[in-house]
Amino acid sequence: MNEPRGRIEEGVVRVAGDARQRYYDARGYGRPIEGNEIALAPVEAAHLLFRGDLRVEDMDFPAFVRRFEDPTFLVRYLVYADLRERGFYLSPAREGWVSDPPADAHFVVYERGSGPWDDERLYELRVAGEREAIGVADLPGALAVVDEESEVTYFEVERPTMNGSSTGFSGTVEADLLADRAIAWDPPEGLFSAAFYGQPLSGRQGADGPIQLSLLEAAYLAERGSLSTDGSILERGRAVEGERFERRLAVYTALRERGVVPKTGFKFGADFRVYADVTSVDDLGHSESLVRALPPGCARSPRELSLDVRLAHGVRKRMVFALASANDGTKPTFVSVGRLTP
Amino acid sequence: MNEPRGRIEEGVVRVAGDARQRYYDARGYGRPIEGNEIALAPVEAAHLLFRGDLRVEDMDFPAFVRRFEDPTFLVRYLVYADLRERGFYLSPAREGWVSDPPADAHFVVYERGSGPWDDERLYELRVAGEREAIGVADLPGALAVVDEESEVTYFEVERPTMNGSSTGFSGTVEADLLADRAIAWDPPEGLFSAAFYGQPLSGRQGADGPIQLSLLEAAYLAERGSLSTDGSILERGRAVEGERFERRLAVYTALRERGVVPKTGFKFGADFRVYADVTSVDDLGHSESLVRALPPGCARSPRELSLDVRLAHGVRKRMVFALASANDGTKPTFVSVGRLTP
Repeated sequence: MNEPRGRIEEGVVRVAGDARQRYYDARGYGRPIEGNEIALAPVEAAHLLFRGDLRVEDMDFPAFVRRFEDPTFLVRYLVYADLRERGFYLSPAREGWVSDPPADAHFVVYERGSGPWDDERLYELRVAGEREAIGVADLPGALAVVDEESEVTYFEVERPTMNGSSTGFSGTVEADLLADRAIAWDPPEGLFSAAFYGQPLSGRQGADGPIQLSLLEAAYLAERGSLSTDGSILERGRAVEGERFERRLAVYTALRERGVVPKTGFKFGADFRVYADVTSVDDLGHSESLVRALPPGCARSPRELSLDVRLAHGVRKRMVFALASANDGTKPTFVSVGRLTP
Repeated sequence: MNEPRGRIEEGVVRVAGDARQRYYDARGYGRPIEGNEIALAPVEAAHLLFRGDLRVEDMDFPAFVRRFEDPTFLVRYLVYADLRERGFYLSPAREGWVSDPPADAHFVVYERGSGPWDDERLYELRVAGEREAIGVADLPGALAVVDEESEVTYFEVERPTMNGSSTGFSGTVEADLLADRAIAWDPPEGLFSAAFYGQPLSGRQGADGPIQLSLLEAAYLAERGSLSTDGSILERGRAVEGERFERRLAVYTALRERGVVPKTGFKFGADFRVYADVTSVDDLGHSESLVRALPPGCARSPRELSLDVRLAHGVRKRMVFALASANDGTKPTFVSVGRLTP
């Protein structure tokens, strides 16, 4: 074996000899320290060790993994190795390895053909095991989840604007509040057919008859002075759904005010499916996104995330999380999470 | 208006005259009481009233709905009307309307062309609003959920046997317990390739190298004396996942013992995807089902149910809920829920 031998110092593996040329310049591992010496982060050293391209003291790969065992080491290693196998260079997001290391990410992944020398970043990547809850609000641009069988699933994260150009409703409507829904027995023209509030009580063919409104739709219209009823819709909403009702109303309101029409996402297991440009119900486009309303500090299990994203992908929609407080006037934040194939 | 007029008595609507011929014999509404008189349940009467085929005292439809307002009336009415519009006859699952009324259902839906006279049952149907939690264990054969916008989604419910003919593993394996997974550095032949335990540490091409096992796989093998490791896998599982680990292990065990191979369902947001007849990993069939492990008395929100079922349908799998206690020796119960288009 002619491979260089590294030594562990202060939690990194230092390699001298021709290490800089061999590992850093040629293949993007580690960071130069002095002369030709480099420092390898444990995941980097583990990968070289596993491939037989490096020796570390007298340890074999299992011994090295045990040496660095902390609950996240193996998970980070698995993602590092997976991306390397896919042909990417990547660096740990730590001081010395990358400039301005992102606080919310574990790795910086470079564009294909790029590496730590030119720092052309493709993703800033968070890594999580499937048993860790994930705060949706502060996700970087990409997330890798290692499941219990050590398979890696990648997600991309964006902050969509959620704007549209839908027709509003400027008339007034009277409705009966019945249990957890409202019915407009004699609705004004356009309430359903143009502005897409409610559903006809007797199916699509009954668009001129009574219209059922969801509590959210009714509450939104009532708050704008466009709907009158006997009793408080907001109170009924709180009674049947608690705080969740107000959070969903905050999201509903924000979407409507951006010209986007939210309708129930029940069939997709989401709070809403949304349409950006509704001018007529007879001419609805494809609804582009599914929206789930969550509290701002909400942590989701990776499995819940995976379920939502997979479903949305399967129905050609974008999965959007709307982080909203219960009606405190703060605007919701929108975070979309999609599938990523690196 | 020549429609008969009914009167409300003890919570039902009684109609005399030619009511039996007109409503029951011809169209399956109500139940005969004496001579030509019939009793209509409120949903039945509401439907006739809405269609203009009946008068009830001096009430119009809104007044009638308000009169019978209880939190579930409108929801049951919407399902009743929807099925009627689809051409089905159905009866409330109550004494007098049907024989042996099922306790866990709201309606008996008859085969097309059949009705209350011949009692050929197509479904026993539970109705729920989307805000009611649903106990999975005691669902009848069909479920209708009315969402907040009053759309109805139907589900069918079965009790699958979950049997298979997969190859087991009868050897022994040594593994290292590392954080929340186990690694067999030098696994015996067939552990992965025939019995489909674990995943190669370095991808599919590395099937002869180290194999990573999930904690569940390792715990199952260890309990059967097929795996040795330093430390208790069950304790590690409990430490990282709590009671859920034992529940999932009970389900994993039951499936393996029926010849079915459970692998992670993470990419589908489920606990497991399962394969019924594995003899070689190189020749895996389609995994037929997704399995979610739940506590026996677990109530799911209809939206969660909708999400699971929709996703499973989209990937051509059956959604199965495995109701299991945490390792008390009771066999799990399997309940599958699928989409239903009446």
